[in-house]
Amino acid sequence: MALVVQKYGGSSVADATSIKRVAQRIVATKKAGNDVVVVVSAMGDTTDELLDLAQQVSPLPPGRELDMLLTSGERISMALLAMAIANLGHEARSFTGSQAGVITDSSHGRARIIDVTPGRIRGALENNQIAIVAGFQGVSQDTKDITTLGRGGSDTTAVALAAALDADVCEIYTDVDGIFTADPRIVPTARKIPRISYEETLEMAACGAKILHLRCVEYARRFDLPIHVRSSFSQKEGTWVVSGAAMRDANSEGTEMEQPIISGVAHDRSEAKITVVGVPDKVGEAATIFKTLADAGVNIDMIVQNVSAAATGRTDISFTLPASDGSAALTSLKKIQDSVGFESLLFDDQIGKVSLIGAGMRSHPGVTAKFFAALADAGVNIEMISTSEIRISVIVGQDEVDTAVTAAHRAFDLDADQVEAVVYGGTGR
Amino acid sequence: MALVVQKYGGSSVADATSIKRVAQRIVATKKAGNDVVVVVSAMGDTTDELLDLAQQVSPLPPGRELDMLLTSGERISMALLAMAIANLGHEARSFTGSQAGVITDSSHGRARIIDVTPGRIRGALENNQIAIVAGFQGVSQDTKDITTLGRGGSDTTAVALAAALDADVCEIYTDVDGIFTADPRIVPTARKIPRISYEETLEMAACGAKILHLRCVEYARRFDLPIHVRSSFSQKEGTWVVSGAAMRDANSEGTEMEQPIISGVAHDRSEAKITVVGVPDKVGEAATIFKTLADAGVNIDMIVQNVSAAATGRTDISFTLPASDGSAALTSLKKIQDSVGFESLLFDDQIGKVSLIGAGMRSHPGVTAKFFAALADAGVNIEMISTSEIRISVIVGQDEVDTAVTAAHRAFDLDADQVEAVVYGGTGR
Repeated sequence: MALVVQKYGGSSVADATSIKRVAQRIVATKKAGNDVVVVVSAMGDTTDELLDLAQQVSPLPPGRELDMLLTSGERISMALLAMAIANLGHEARSFTGSQAGVITDSSHGRARIIDVTPGRIRGALENNQIAIVAGFQGVSQDTKDITTLGRGGSDTTAVALAAALDADVCEIYTDVDGIFTADPRIVPTARKIPRISYEETLEMAACGAKILHLRCVEYARRFDLPIHVRSSFSQKEGTWVVSGAAMRDANSEGTEMEQPIISGVAHDRSEAKITVVGVPDKVGEAATIFKTLADAGVNIDMIVQNVSAAATGRTDISFTLPASDGSAALTSLKKIQDSVGFESLLFDDQIGKVSLIGAGMRSHPGVTAKFFAALADAGVNIEMISTSEIRISVIVGQDEVDTAVTAAHRAFDLDADQVEAVVYGGTGR
Repeated sequence: MALVVQKYGGSSVADATSIKRVAQRIVATKKAGNDVVVVVSAMGDTTDELLDLAQQVSPLPPGRELDMLLTSGERISMALLAMAIANLGHEARSFTGSQAGVITDSSHGRARIIDVTPGRIRGALENNQIAIVAGFQGVSQDTKDITTLGRGGSDTTAVALAAALDADVCEIYTDVDGIFTADPRIVPTARKIPRISYEETLEMAACGAKILHLRCVEYARRFDLPIHVRSSFSQKEGTWVVSGAAMRDANSEGTEMEQPIISGVAHDRSEAKITVVGVPDKVGEAATIFKTLADAGVNIDMIVQNVSAAATGRTDISFTLPASDGSAALTSLKKIQDSVGFESLLFDDQIGKVSLIGAGMRSHPGVTAKFFAALADAGVNIEMISTSEIRISVIVGQDEVDTAVTAAHRAFDLDADQVEAVVYGGTGR
């Protein structure tokens, strides 16, 4: 008998019909002889509706009260799901984040989990009950106030609970069949990846693949907990996210002839590029610039500094950042223009990032050359380049993203023989 | 400096605009130098919408999960109210029933409060914060599960918290200006009662006056806590519900020349009458009948047994009950028809109950005669009669209720010189 933790996002429990469908799936897992713990997000648009209500009442609501408000969303979905399961003749108990023992710090709206003490969940399982847990929420250790975990919070709740309960697997249900070699909306022949390492998944997530959030993958990697990403709309096997060691074991067992060099192609249209033009080429100027940006709370992604033109003694520094941080970044930089002595600022939000990810590329020279050649053949101009051991990212014009993704996907033989992806629409939290 | 507990019903916080209005009222009370604790119900129709969702998922949802679902309603309203107060520059903290220390038994959907330990509320008050508490909910002592208190739950929460905090007053905000001598929709000249005893209020509530629920008045009487019933739509003084001793003190101080004999006229159209015809006039037959009804969970109000007709050795037993219990009552009685040997059952839901209430009637003979004469003059036929020390109730035809109420109101000089009641519409929970 296995202990399975399942997580269903908002689109999987959007209405009464969806909730009843999910309940059947949960009961089937229970009937198959497993202990089941379910983590659930708020129904469909509930969170947005609550945020809208808050805006009507106060332009800048206190974080504590906003968390109190938003957590009512999961309260509704989890109670309804427990009812639907009871209706199928199985006992279910719903638990808030606090009741489930999700202990966090006091950062309202973006709390970090600092401990998980799932005594009541264990009790429910011992009583042969299915435990339904509110995702996205916890209780602060210091103030005992209700907190929310921020983006990707429900996935993180599921993985954290699975780790604390020593579960056999954490199943993340979504509206696609798993993690694909590229976004199937861009590359219809994208293939579902059957097995992928935590590290590659992290690079995929950081590069714009929206299936799993960084936090939850980081958490799973720390506890070596297998994640099974799959669709709540089908019974197909999805994508297993496992450790590098588990990947190698699977490969040596001959289940896969050889690990593919490249896992997939990710893309991200949400970034913008800022160029600081004419920075005096002196020690410490770059440090001043990025210290200023950090103080303004701006997240920097890629950074490129051109070689200084000897004649002028000045250089240009370009970096990418979330487009939504653009205004804050420009404002903070303008304040130090005189003291740093740079000439001007350029801002471009019509960019896109295309990333090639694969643990295999470490040991395969020539991947970079092949990637760049594919883009050149497709007529795509590269503006910036950044690499890690298992990733190559390039910045291109936003309207060239699709072309670049398609070209790279084809160049590395990632295309399936036939179209297998179905995108069901909707996003969870 | 006084400690004021205020309770706002669902119609007072129906939308963002109402919530902001209530927030201003709360802040005004705080600014006047009071410590303020606010108990709030779910917004407008939230509870009905959640019940509807539950019905879509399961025809008979488990009580524990239904309570988990419904309590999200107050979570939303209290968080929004705290935000609105923060927006006015005052610190507010919202607390669930559990956080506020409302400890109950485990009867989901109709839990009884068994203890109130408002440590966190006291802490908030010490920090000069306004405490907002979710009405209608608590946490069970045994299972630590979330519970709801059932009908009138938010009023009861307010009174229980006020008692535990030793508050100076519990203000119950509603959509009328207080408790009236009769329903102003029937008697436009009904007067607002400035001061009334717990006992008379209990009789009014039991007889169909919908302002305060029995439970909350009983609770207030036990702890001798003054309740001030007033409108959230005006600044007028409402009705003070106090102990008989406080009434006498007020009277001896000369604030009122003499306590009026009759406080008011209540009516109730929600009852039905069942007559068990031809019951053999033997010892124990009535006991069997009412034991059967009790086992079926039927609440009985008035009972009348006619004198046995000597010739037949049979009698008729009539009783009133909530019309909604009619079907259950008839079904259970039919099962014992043969064993008891009664002849037939009559059911009439076209009745109404009109009650004259007043602590003064104890010492004033002739009240009953005057009441009956007034009804007779108005052409109203009396079907059943029941009395207590401070109440006389009669059952009349449902279409004669308005006539009876108006006639009694006039006969006891309860009419105001001018119309003063405004009914704003809407109901809380």
